[in-house]
Formats: sequence, C-alpha cells, structure tokens
Amino acid sequence: NELNFDSEARSVLSRVPPLLTDLYQFTMAYAYWRADRHNEPAVFELFFRDNPFGGGFSLFAGLSDCLLFLQNFAFSDDDVEYLRSVLPADTDAAFFSYLKELDCSAVSVSAVPEGSVVFARVPLLEVSGPLAVVQLLETSLLCLVNYASLVCSNAARFRLAAGPRRRLLEMGLRRAQGPDGGLTASRYTYIGGFDLTSNALAGRLFGIPVAGTMAHSYVTSFSSLEEVWPQTLVPCGGAGSVDFICLVKGWLGRVCQILGSKTSLVREGELAAFLSYAIAYPQNFLPVIDSYSVSCSGLLCFCAVALALCELQYQPLGVRLDSGDLCRQSLEVRRVFKECSKQFSVPQFESLIIVGTNSISEQSLAELSKKENEIDVVGVGTHLVTCTSQPSLGCVYKLTEVRGRPRMKMSEDPEKSTLPGRKSVYRLLDADGLYLPVYNHPFMHFFLLFSLFVIKIQSYRKW
Amino acid sequence: NELNFDSEARSVLSRVPPLLTDLYQFTMAYAYWRADRHNEPAVFELFFRDNPFGGGFSLFAGLSDCLLFLQNFAFSDDDVEYLRSVLPADTDAAFFSYLKELDCSAVSVSAVPEGSVVFARVPLLEVSGPLAVVQLLETSLLCLVNYASLVCSNAARFRLAAGPRRRLLEMGLRRAQGPDGGLTASRYTYIGGFDLTSNALAGRLFGIPVAGTMAHSYVTSFSSLEEVWPQTLVPCGGAGSVDFICLVKGWLGRVCQILGSKTSLVREGELAAFLSYAIAYPQNFLPVIDSYSVSCSGLLCFCAVALALCELQYQPLGVRLDSGDLCRQSLEVRRVFKECSKQFSVPQFESLIIVGTNSISEQSLAELSKKENEIDVVGVGTHLVTCTSQPSLGCVYKLTEVRGRPRMKMSEDPEKSTLPGRKSVYRLLDADGLYLPVYNHPFMHFFLLFSLFVIKIQSYRKW
Repeated sequence: NELNFDSEARSVLSRVPPLLTDLYQFTMAYAYWRADRHNEPAVFELFFRDNPFGGGFSLFAGLSDCLLFLQNFAFSDDDVEYLRSVLPADTDAAFFSYLKELDCSAVSVSAVPEGSVVFARVPLLEVSGPLAVVQLLETSLLCLVNYASLVCSNAARFRLAAGPRRRLLEMGLRRAQGPDGGLTASRYTYIGGFDLTSNALAGRLFGIPVAGTMAHSYVTSFSSLEEVWPQTLVPCGGAGSVDFICLVKGWLGRVCQILGSKTSLVREGELAAFLSYAIAYPQNFLPVIDSYSVSCSGLLCFCAVALALCELQYQPLGVRLDSGDLCRQSLEVRRVFKECSKQFSVPQFESLIIVGTNSISEQSLAELSKKENEIDVVGVGTHLVTCTSQPSLGCVYKLTEVRGRPRMKMSEDPEKSTLPGRKSVYRLLDADGLYLPVYNHPFMHFFLLFSLFVIKIQSYRKW
Repeated sequence: NELNFDSEARSVLSRVPPLLTDLYQFTMAYAYWRADRHNEPAVFELFFRDNPFGGGFSLFAGLSDCLLFLQNFAFSDDDVEYLRSVLPADTDAAFFSYLKELDCSAVSVSAVPEGSVVFARVPLLEVSGPLAVVQLLETSLLCLVNYASLVCSNAARFRLAAGPRRRLLEMGLRRAQGPDGGLTASRYTYIGGFDLTSNALAGRLFGIPVAGTMAHSYVTSFSSLEEVWPQTLVPCGGAGSVDFICLVKGWLGRVCQILGSKTSLVREGELAAFLSYAIAYPQNFLPVIDSYSVSCSGLLCFCAVALALCELQYQPLGVRLDSGDLCRQSLEVRRVFKECSKQFSVPQFESLIIVGTNSISEQSLAELSKKENEIDVVGVGTHLVTCTSQPSLGCVYKLTEVRGRPRMKMSEDPEKSTLPGRKSVYRLLDADGLYLPVYNHPFMHFFLLFSLFVIKIQSYRKW
C-alpha cells in the first residue's frame, strides 16, 4: 500500500531520472553491449557490511522508491544526446538507439519488506535481469536505499532511547542535506517510530501527522500590547466579545502574586505575542516560552493567557522549551502548572503538554529519559535527519552471478571481498522467538556459509 | 550567470515547493494576518554561529537556488486545501484566499556573492519584505543554503588538503542523503574546488566535467577469454583488423618476464575484462586493477593490454586503485610503468594516470599529500558528500527588525541570543591584503559592534 500515492506524490517520488547515476555505468554498459554480453542474465545484491551507529541492527527502507524508479526507468532523447556528447566519439551509434529503447521490464527484484529489521551482509535487494540493465541501476538504487534505511534506523534508535510513551516530533528539514533529504527524512523517520513531523509537504504527500505553532521570531516581532489586534475574544461556544487584554492582565497579576514574581520583569512584547496568538488560535495555544527568560517572563505570560483562555472555556495545549536545561525547566514548569491548577481550581492545567526541543541527539535523549523530567513531546532535528554519528549507511551493490555462474570480488582489503552466488536468506529464531545473531558471531563467515547451505534447524522463517 | 540554466535544469532546481517548510510558518502567518500585521515591513538575517569543521571559514553557496525558489514561490490550490485541512477549523477562510495570491514580488534579498568566503555570525542573506511572507520563507531558504554551503566548504577543505595540482573527482552520489543531496553535492563541490564528477545528471544540467570508466562488477563479470568479443582491433588511423587477444597474450608474456611474475597467477577473467574494455574504448582505457590482486594480476593485465594498445598507436590513459594502501601501491605501479617504458621503449608509459579511490577523508587526503605517492587523481565519495565530520552547517534565520525597530532574542542559552538591527557588513583587510579575523577575537562582540558602527579603518572593501 506504500505505492498507493496520488499522482503528485508519484511525480515527486519519481524525481530520480535514470541519468542520476555514475558515468561509469554507461561506459560499462557500452562495453557489455559491444561484446554482445548486455543481455546475459546477471544478478546483483544490495547489502551493507556493518550495522549502522555501532549497533546490532538496521531497518530497511526505500523499497517503494526503488520500485517507482524501476517502473519509470527510461532515457529521454536529451539524456541520450548528452551521453553521446560525453562518451568517446567512436562509440557505435547503435548503442544510443539501444539506450533509447531500454526499460526495466526484464528486471526482477526480490527484497526484504519495507521497514524490516535487517543485519549486515544479508542481501536487502536481489536484482536480476540483463547484465547491462542491472548494472545501470546500481547508483540510483544505492542512493534510494542508503539514506532512507539510515534515517529510518536512526529514528528507531531515537524511539528506543525515548521509550514507548513519549511522543517524538521530526523537525529537521532546515538542516537536512537538501530538500528531498528533508522530505525523505520526514517520511522514513515516521516509519522508524516517530509520531509527528513539522514538514508540511511530508504531511500532504504521505499523510504524516504534522505539528508546530510558533518560532522565536513570532515572539520577538512584538514589542507592545498596542500591536495586539483584535483585542477581544468570544468565549468558547458563547456570544459577546470579552476584552481579552484586560482579562489577561488580571490573570498576570494573580499569577505573579501566587508565584512571588514581579510583573515589571515580564516582557510586554512576549505577552503581546502570546495574546495575539491565543486570539488567533484559542483552541491551539502552545507558545515557545524561552525567547527571553522562562521563569521571569515566558512562563508567567503563558499562565496568564492560558488561564484567561480557560476562563473563556477554551483548552490551552501547553508550552515549548527550546534552550537551556530542558529537564530542570520542565520540572519547574510542571510545578507552576500544578500550583496554578490548585490555586485557581483549573484541573486541566496539571496535564498541559510540555514540548522540548534543543539539539537533541540519541545520547541526550537517552540521558533525558533516565533523568526526572516532565517532557511529553520531544522535537528532534539535526542529529536525527543528518545522522550525525554516521551520516552514510554504506550499502554496496555487488555482482554475484552471471549466466548462472557465481562471481566474486577479492580486493586488496579482505573485508571488501564478496560472497559469490545467489543466496537464500533465513532468519533464525531461538526458542524464545528472538533473532539468532548469526552475523555477529566471531565465526561469521563459517556461520554464513553454514546458514546458507546446510541449514536444518527447525525454528526458521523464510523471508 | 549561475541563473542561465536551460528550462529542464530550472525545473529540476525549482523542486522546492513552498509547502516544503515547517507547519509553524503557516500558523504564525495566520496569527500575523489575523492581527493585521502581515504586511508590516520586516527583516530577517540568515547566518551560522560557528565556522564548520572546526575551521576558520566557510564558503557561501545556494544563492541561485534561493533566487529560483523566490521567483517560483506560489501556493497551488491543492497546497491551500491541505493547509485548510490541518489548520484549526475556525481559521478565517479569507486567510486561505490571501495565501493563494501570495508571491515574493515584495521581497528583497541582499546577499554575499555565491561562492564567497564567509565567517561565523555575519549575515549571508538579508531578506526583507512583508512580515508574514519573509517568515514563510525561513525553512526553505535554510534548507537551500545549509547543505550547499556545507558541502562547498567541505570541498574547499579537501582541495586545500590535496594541494593545487592533484585532480579531485567527486563520486558520492550513491552515499548521498537522497537523490538531490547527491546532485547538490556534485554541483557545489565543483564550486568548492573539485575538477570532475561521476554524476552524469550533474554533468548534463550544470556542465561539470564527468569521469568514470569501470567498476569491479565489470571485471568480475568476465571469467574467460571466450567472452571477449569482438576479438580484433583496427590500429589507430589504420586499416585491417589485428587479433587483439593474441597480441595481448604476447605482451603479457613479455611483461611477466621483465617483472619476474608468473602468468599462471594472472586471472583470465580480469584479462578478458580489460581486453574487452580496450576493444570498446581503445582511446579511453583506464581499468580498475584491484578486483583480485594488483601485483599478481591486475597490473600485469593492464600493462599487457596497454602495451598492445600502444603498439596499435592508441594511447591508454591509466589505472584506478580502489583498495589497500594507495600510496604504496601507486609507487609500485609507477615503478612498473617506468620499467615497461624503458624496457619496451614506450615513453608515454611513464606518465600514465593513477587514480586512487578508497574511503578518502579530508584527514587521509592530507596524510596522503604528505607521503610519497604517485596518485594523479583522487576520487572522493562518502566523506565529501555527507560531510562526515559535521553533517550540518547550522544556519539560522533570525528576525532583526520590524517596522524599522531592531528586534532581539535573548534565550536561556547566551550563545543563541541575536544581535538586533540591520547590519552593514565590512570586510577588513590588513596591510598584506589578508582578512582581519574580527570574529575570532576574544572581544568578538565588542569588535562586531565596533566594526558595524564606528569603522574608520582605511583598508576595507564593502561587499
């Protein structure tokens, strides 16, 4: 069902033209064609050599993109003219006619299901078909699988670090490696275990729930209460405008009084920003409260506006913290919420949402999860989408068979050698139903061969 | 002239629809619109807080993409319908009519020229225009500048590490963070100092010189000389076919003799692959020689085929090494080339090109440059395009002025505070014409203010 996108989504996703590949795929294709080997049946395997992030697994993603790419694979006349201009002048003209007719109708793909847990050195894709065609696919398939799988796996690690309860928001578009790096991140972090994205296009194309309310610039754009307009709000489900500024000012005095804070330290611009936002979105009030000072201004402004909303029967949502010690601040914010709830008899104030966003990494999320805190939603950007600790998965695409004969590469680096021949992949489960870590074993190669050829164990499940 | 792309390039580059942004830009835009503040004149600055890669500079890139984005900025009816579905139900319908009419005709951009050397905390872009519109642009502009500038800067660091003479080939598409991450990398690493790319689409769209010959799969796809077809080659500029296999076999015997190698260790498949490639590309022979063993097979096969080509008046290009100790191997390869040149009186053999590719990082390139080696061209992939050591530049886009009044953010983290007001940026040069490192000074903020407001130094050049 991943393929059931609307036509615009399909057009965005089929953004990988077959020319987006390495030139050497074409020089090799010509050499195969010249030797009349281009239609020999061949098999390539796509796999990675080491589990990412120093961990014990990866998720596999990008399959539906690969299938769309294969379905749309065709060279335009302009593509072919470009290739004619860069290949040697004595290249046989009939080769370019051959390219113009190419498609992937003779290509078969066997794959692990999208989103599966996978391990190093196990084939994720097996691509078989005419030698020249399956060779031409190499770079594009790698590009589509490498980052999608990496960012999906990274998201899963953030999810494991966060625990199952806390909601996770992906918000990395601005730091992603290019526009569709951002779009791919939003899409595959959702598969990897995130709940929400800030990316509106990802919401529209893939149906991912979107979230977001305001940036610091919104807050700092206000300097005085004179900028608030309209100044009135109609109570929820009621009639008759209430002077909302006046109402909030009253609440601000009471909040400062019970908390022992000074109204003189409250930023008028911040109060104006919150007021204005609440008037625009009385049902969706969730401001960022650290544009100046959380304890001296932002939190007080929030409480005043949110209590005024409650008085008018609206339900404020909560706050976002974007700097400083998120755990410590969230405890303080929750304490103030509970105090307000008690003092003003507003029970819903206890369960307001606290969103935390501040350069969260997998490590800082794991530390945050261990410490006492009151953060309900964590927003993650840079470290999630760029996969800071390992920004590339390192998938490779290796020839394993030609005309039914196994092929092998030896290399000067032993770890770059390949295992020849087509593989049948088994997933071994122990008595408890857990995956047997066949490939982490010191006798990895022996086990690999063992698992491929002489397996007789009862508890396996073929993919 | 960066904007003089053909129509297809423009369509690829205008792939950033205005919906590819964070949802909160729209919630803020609505709140501004509701408060009738959306047309207030506002100014944002785009800058980064720290020079990337722990270095002393960055390059600025992505400007022409930003300008194309601004020129094409318009919401489709479907975009607006999507926004209507995710914004609160009580959002005023007139706001969506406003969105449908929006464009960037009232937006002005001042920018550093594309490709400039820039420093931390200096505005790279100043974007001014109606408050709601310039707010909506934030995420997209950041996404377009962040990665382009980062990868361009990374390329410049690889260039500095390589020295001016050695040629650098970008070949990172398969490891890039998504398809246009790869395309962006090819484009901006060229601006940053690379000479070549493997990316055929980048060659076509941007006119970057492309390079590439063969992968290991080409070599390992051959297993016997019977697969070589045709088996003959016409001498350069001459007539009459020569039995090329026979000619090469003769040269292989002579090469093994002068080098004291055993022909029995030579891989028949590797020899067949090189023969076949040379017959297809007699003027462009540059095989990868480490599919099995460089010294026992790959190098011997290359020399035999290349000497046969020379005998037929063709000019072979060289070899590629893709594993092991590149420096040591390149010395050995060059020694063999010189030996062949001397023994067989083939002077052009001395100056064959040696290409090295094997997970090159900035550090390994710097080390390579210090060691004795004979590598003429270095190919770089993963570490270049994903910017392993710092995969995000961290540009931010901050409000500095509304209605002529300076705006400032304080934040709980002092380094996240912004400097209010519009800036005039000066580049200070010392007596030798070198940039004065104003921003690295411990009294940075003082110097910044000083340079902004009271500058009277003679040797400055305004951007």
